[in-house]
Amino acid sequence: MSHPAEEAFPAGKPRIVVIGAGFGGLSAARALAHAPVEVTLIDHHNYHLFQPLLYQVATAALSPADIATPIRAILRRQRNATILLARVSGIDPAARIIETETRRIPYDVLVVATGARHAYFGHDEWESVAPGLKTIDDATGIRRRILLAFERAEQVADAAERRRLLTFLIIGAGPTGVELAGALAELGRKALAADFRNIDPRDTRVVLVEAGPRILAAFPESLSAAAKRALEGLGVEVLLGQPVTRCDADGVELGERRIEARTILWAAGVEASPAAKWLGAEHDRAGRVLVGPDLTLPGHPEIFVIGDTALARDGTGKPLPGVAPVAKQQGAYVARAIKNRLAGRPTPPFRYRDYGNLATIGRRAAVADFGVLRLSGRIAWLLWGAVHIFFLIGFRNRVAVLLDWLWAYLTFQRGARLITGPTGPR
Amino acid sequence: MSHPAEEAFPAGKPRIVVIGAGFGGLSAARALAHAPVEVTLIDHHNYHLFQPLLYQVATAALSPADIATPIRAILRRQRNATILLARVSGIDPAARIIETETRRIPYDVLVVATGARHAYFGHDEWESVAPGLKTIDDATGIRRRILLAFERAEQVADAAERRRLLTFLIIGAGPTGVELAGALAELGRKALAADFRNIDPRDTRVVLVEAGPRILAAFPESLSAAAKRALEGLGVEVLLGQPVTRCDADGVELGERRIEARTILWAAGVEASPAAKWLGAEHDRAGRVLVGPDLTLPGHPEIFVIGDTALARDGTGKPLPGVAPVAKQQGAYVARAIKNRLAGRPTPPFRYRDYGNLATIGRRAAVADFGVLRLSGRIAWLLWGAVHIFFLIGFRNRVAVLLDWLWAYLTFQRGARLITGPTGPR
Repeated sequence: MSHPAEEAFPAGKPRIVVIGAGFGGLSAARALAHAPVEVTLIDHHNYHLFQPLLYQVATAALSPADIATPIRAILRRQRNATILLARVSGIDPAARIIETETRRIPYDVLVVATGARHAYFGHDEWESVAPGLKTIDDATGIRRRILLAFERAEQVADAAERRRLLTFLIIGAGPTGVELAGALAELGRKALAADFRNIDPRDTRVVLVEAGPRILAAFPESLSAAAKRALEGLGVEVLLGQPVTRCDADGVELGERRIEARTILWAAGVEASPAAKWLGAEHDRAGRVLVGPDLTLPGHPEIFVIGDTALARDGTGKPLPGVAPVAKQQGAYVARAIKNRLAGRPTPPFRYRDYGNLATIGRRAAVADFGVLRLSGRIAWLLWGAVHIFFLIGFRNRVAVLLDWLWAYLTFQRGARLITGPTGPR
Repeated sequence: MSHPAEEAFPAGKPRIVVIGAGFGGLSAARALAHAPVEVTLIDHHNYHLFQPLLYQVATAALSPADIATPIRAILRRQRNATILLARVSGIDPAARIIETETRRIPYDVLVVATGARHAYFGHDEWESVAPGLKTIDDATGIRRRILLAFERAEQVADAAERRRLLTFLIIGAGPTGVELAGALAELGRKALAADFRNIDPRDTRVVLVEAGPRILAAFPESLSAAAKRALEGLGVEVLLGQPVTRCDADGVELGERRIEARTILWAAGVEASPAAKWLGAEHDRAGRVLVGPDLTLPGHPEIFVIGDTALARDGTGKPLPGVAPVAKQQGAYVARAIKNRLAGRPTPPFRYRDYGNLATIGRRAAVADFGVLRLSGRIAWLLWGAVHIFFLIGFRNRVAVLLDWLWAYLTFQRGARLITGPTGPR
């Protein structure tokens, strides 16, 4: 699909503004390093977050700095890139202006890569009792809740309340829910087992609740089944086909059934950032902007929407999943399309190359789906570790994570078991 | 000095309660590992903090988990020790009861090691504009302020406001103030130098203000002078004999003179925790409890007060400094005294063995005072690093800190440059 380059760009150096320094936005900005453009990358955090390992911060295995790299450090040598720490409040597509709380930023080409947040689908009141996991502060907040639950259980005299404190309930059995459940089971049974005097680690109960018929629905059924067996081997109770009907500070209701739990974590759904609202664009129920095969907004060839913010489709019309590889490939595609336009060349539609899908279930187990090749168990786990270390940005983070993992593997200990933040114990 | 052991202890296993898991309290609890007593260690954090390196968290060189170790992990194998995450609200010395928010804990022997907090000496309103550095949350809060100041300076158009944002003012030139000043000067000139597009790193101004006549007053004059030269070599302005008369969000006043600065850090003074109030005990102006030569409260041989909470004196009547080695030796002394009492043996008065004093000034410079031997410069700096690594608790922390330091040394980069927490950019 070709674009009238002479229309899209003014005479000077085109101003490319990228909103969001996640996998998609960062990949677009970096791929424009040698293009004759001015790149402005806007994010309201000063770091790029390696989200696939965020659950390990929430379960005290890694430190925030292990999985987050300052954006300025990543783009230090890219002289055509400027970074702006700011929160976008709106976009004026007609005037080609982005509004932040303090200023208005004009663009010639806009790349919207603002990601997704967890969503409660009409039950926003559940957020305070069942937090989700999307940011570093979410992760340290969840870590605080989990560790405080054990501390309180150690002190409480009432057996029912102790059971409630030692019950960890995770809603949603996608990759995040499965990884959280596995890590929590190991935390209670291994890492903390010898640390308390009044708690019996066998009392730790981890329940994974899923509304659908199986866990890891994006994987083939055989791998879902293998993952379920691995989770159950760690002692996790997996409840399938059980939509949550109520959620409060004491537990959840699944129709007629009630499970008492003081720690409830939400991994059941996400919705796109408010980009569709800013753009006045057509979107699906989860807020994802409908884009064309070239990832632009219909009627706006100068606006690209990528990653979790976009609803893009593969050749068969199936929506692409909200995973890091899609966002990264889309970012690279956008950069290529911009360079092609500058050179007056056409760019074929975006095509996602699926290199496979991985999810881990605690220590030594994982599932891997490469289409024809499907793996589970120890080999999949080693592969999972290698892939995640490889894709972590920055040499320092890779070494730090390797060291933390090695330490945890050899000692069963968790290095980052700190209760930080404003909330003290009750 | 001997104690009537038969009076102090009841028939069963004596209950030793230690409040505070800093250097003093932890040292006392650990030294009681093989004594026939029950040890309860109470702290309102779940970690022991290696405070001498806290300024490195505040200046983005280390992660919180590098310098904090879970108390439960440290005492995992000490079967006579129970850990209680709780905030003490009072002590009843007559009934021998400690009150926390949720329960009352009886003791036979009490060890109060609750440390100190920064104090504003009648100017509590300065705290919000000039935060001090005592906890992990203080450190990540200061890190956020420092990094946000650079981010705002990058965006601001007004030259005077940019200068204000790039001026970092530290009040108090003890070890913490000196170490913060050195680290900040390097952060601005080296670590961040290439990261911004609109800031000239030479605009970064670090001012160290001290009311007294010299910096590092606990060191000999020759080392104070060497440290001052080293700081000035890093570009720090050192202002001596200048008490702060006013402190607001825009800067400070030193008598007639005003210095505009958006980031002000308080390293000018500490006061003991409220232990003296809880105990109804005699104390000095800084709140430190006056203790006898055996570190007990006069009239209460069953109550020991140690570390920064106590005003103990050396043989010549000079107060002992509020440093980690004093607290650690006092903790070990208390454990010895308790064991002696149980055996009916007397314990000679506490004597502090001063092995020397160290302070560092950024990269490659430090001062070391070993009485006859005084060092400054590169050798003192290497010594400082070795000593701090050696005393860090836990193998994992030692390796993690070594790795972070090596990385920072080789690349001039800071690994933990994350802006976290509730405050977003303006």
